[in-house]
Amino acid sequence: MPEDFIVTPWEVTGEVDYDKLIVKFGTQKVTDEVLQRIEKHASPLHVMLRRGIFYSHRDMNWIIDQHEKGNTFFIYTGRGPSGSTHIGHLMPWILCKWLQDHFKNKFYFQLTDDEKFLFEEKKTLDETKKYAYDNALDIIALGFDPKLSHIFLDTEYIHNLYPIAVKVAKKITFSTVRAVFGFNQSMNVGSIFYTSMQAAPAFLGSVLEGRNVPCLIPCGIDQDPHFRIARDAAEKLGYFKPALLHNKLLPSLSGSGKMSSSIPGSSISTTDTEADIKKKINNAFTGGRVSVEEQRKLGGNPDVCAVYKYYLYMFIPDDKELQKRYDECRSGSIMCGECKQNLISLVWTFLKDHQEKREKAKDVLEEFMLRD
Amino acid sequence: MPEDFIVTPWEVTGEVDYDKLIVKFGTQKVTDEVLQRIEKHASPLHVMLRRGIFYSHRDMNWIIDQHEKGNTFFIYTGRGPSGSTHIGHLMPWILCKWLQDHFKNKFYFQLTDDEKFLFEEKKTLDETKKYAYDNALDIIALGFDPKLSHIFLDTEYIHNLYPIAVKVAKKITFSTVRAVFGFNQSMNVGSIFYTSMQAAPAFLGSVLEGRNVPCLIPCGIDQDPHFRIARDAAEKLGYFKPALLHNKLLPSLSGSGKMSSSIPGSSISTTDTEADIKKKINNAFTGGRVSVEEQRKLGGNPDVCAVYKYYLYMFIPDDKELQKRYDECRSGSIMCGECKQNLISLVWTFLKDHQEKREKAKDVLEEFMLRD
Repeated sequence: MPEDFIVTPWEVTGEVDYDKLIVKFGTQKVTDEVLQRIEKHASPLHVMLRRGIFYSHRDMNWIIDQHEKGNTFFIYTGRGPSGSTHIGHLMPWILCKWLQDHFKNKFYFQLTDDEKFLFEEKKTLDETKKYAYDNALDIIALGFDPKLSHIFLDTEYIHNLYPIAVKVAKKITFSTVRAVFGFNQSMNVGSIFYTSMQAAPAFLGSVLEGRNVPCLIPCGIDQDPHFRIARDAAEKLGYFKPALLHNKLLPSLSGSGKMSSSIPGSSISTTDTEADIKKKINNAFTGGRVSVEEQRKLGGNPDVCAVYKYYLYMFIPDDKELQKRYDECRSGSIMCGECKQNLISLVWTFLKDHQEKREKAKDVLEEFMLRD
Repeated sequence: MPEDFIVTPWEVTGEVDYDKLIVKFGTQKVTDEVLQRIEKHASPLHVMLRRGIFYSHRDMNWIIDQHEKGNTFFIYTGRGPSGSTHIGHLMPWILCKWLQDHFKNKFYFQLTDDEKFLFEEKKTLDETKKYAYDNALDIIALGFDPKLSHIFLDTEYIHNLYPIAVKVAKKITFSTVRAVFGFNQSMNVGSIFYTSMQAAPAFLGSVLEGRNVPCLIPCGIDQDPHFRIARDAAEKLGYFKPALLHNKLLPSLSGSGKMSSSIPGSSISTTDTEADIKKKINNAFTGGRVSVEEQRKLGGNPDVCAVYKYYLYMFIPDDKELQKRYDECRSGSIMCGECKQNLISLVWTFLKDHQEKREKAKDVLEEFMLRD
């Protein structure tokens, strides 16, 4: 029987069963014990950890061990610049910022302009570079420490990435990328090579420091296949395997699958206006009933509701308040219209502030960009 | 029936039938008409053109057309730095130098340290880089104009090459490299991508000048498959297809196949001592008879003789003198021993001078190296 959902770095469709994904990808569940170990160094726990949004990992215990031995990790994550940043993209970056605040890590952020050019038929390299610089503002806006944080485009930092990437590439066969990503023989040879480029920054901290430095990669679970390959290569190259901390994907506003820049209504972009947000959230899929009367009587279903997911993932960080909203929905004491207005207000408050920081980021962009 | 010879960029075995190769690769024979067109601009013709060592081409008429219209070509060739340069490698470089003397072309020389790392299991990138710098001395020693000539290593010039390479890569599928090079699924993903890197410099002149500049690639016929791919990609990318001028491969001293750095006795390295040369040439395969008596009576066979091939390809540039040697061999008036001593003397004269120039090249290396 075919799976009823697909999760690859380039495609997320269907209702994702995240527990099944842990089994399929061979990762570990983030247990209370793992959370407690993190909390010893970073308290209080970030809401996305507490609520199991970051729910899966590889080698988190080892990362904490290393930190406790004084060999702390650097953080690496990235973004494929195919369009505007949307709110779902921010989730791992927000966690990176929180980690940096507590662990004082170096932070490397990869903008894969080559990837988006290679994988999207109609995109030019000029376009993906333009998006990369636009997306960089969103990263900076989150407040990373400029002394510890470095952002780079693959095509601009290639002189440092390529020598690492070819070492990784030498350890990966076409059979492997075929098995891991489902590639066929009609894939272009750049896209076949590309996973080596995404693996490379996992070893960048070690290469730049000339010693083996642990690496932690917070990222969407859909990116795990790249790093499974990176971990295999790491062993063969004598580097530490990168550790991972995976988040569930912020669902589409239209109700199923991951948010996607390519389906405009499904996601909220960080550059959206208040009017855009209103329109998108007002059109969102909810767990409401066919009529107000029925909803007052039977209550709504927050468990399938895109609006509720936004609260759960990011926009109501207070647990009691979230529980209250859940109960109000279930009991039929709040209608979808009101609930949506509330989300519109919270998202716009967040984005207005983010957009101001984004503007200011333009002045300090160069401090963050890694080119030499 | 399987072919009795194999010619790929990574393997040349068997007695190569060069006429068959023209048919197989779909190239054109260098005709008298083509030679006359070249000679109009570069007279007298180089001995390797006159003698059909450079025997095959793609679009040479077009290259001359462009030159005559005032849109002259740049020259691109290269070397996979897996060991010392040997005399066979010099042949296309010598032709490039001769072309530059007459046509005043810009000259780009690619040292594919990434390729040799990716394709040779045991080679490290440090080793291939070391060989690249060593090989660069042989290029410079040939006397290229430092103002017009640029040498680069792939890993060091990657910031300019990679953006071109990914554009090429996007136009090439795994099916294509499988068909052209015979790759299977157990090839590493770096080697699958690599042909895009070898294609890139064919468009470098155009990228750097911001206009479409014709490109001529003199190279061993074994490298043609890469440039067939580059030519296909060129059309799709809006660049001129690179033109090619292919040489036959200097045969192995041991009698069949191409000279190879990996079989020491089969080739003469540019850094060999006089003693090395003596040993190698004295052990060379010849067209001699089983005994001196028989040879005096029946004559030798220069057509199968590795020593004669050295004369033909490079070491007796005077046609009358070459014919005399041919006749002396056929008539049994010269024995292999004497003929070998003569070649040893000619090769050592050439190499002693080359080695002096190679030493001096160290002082000007930086003038030639393209890194920015």
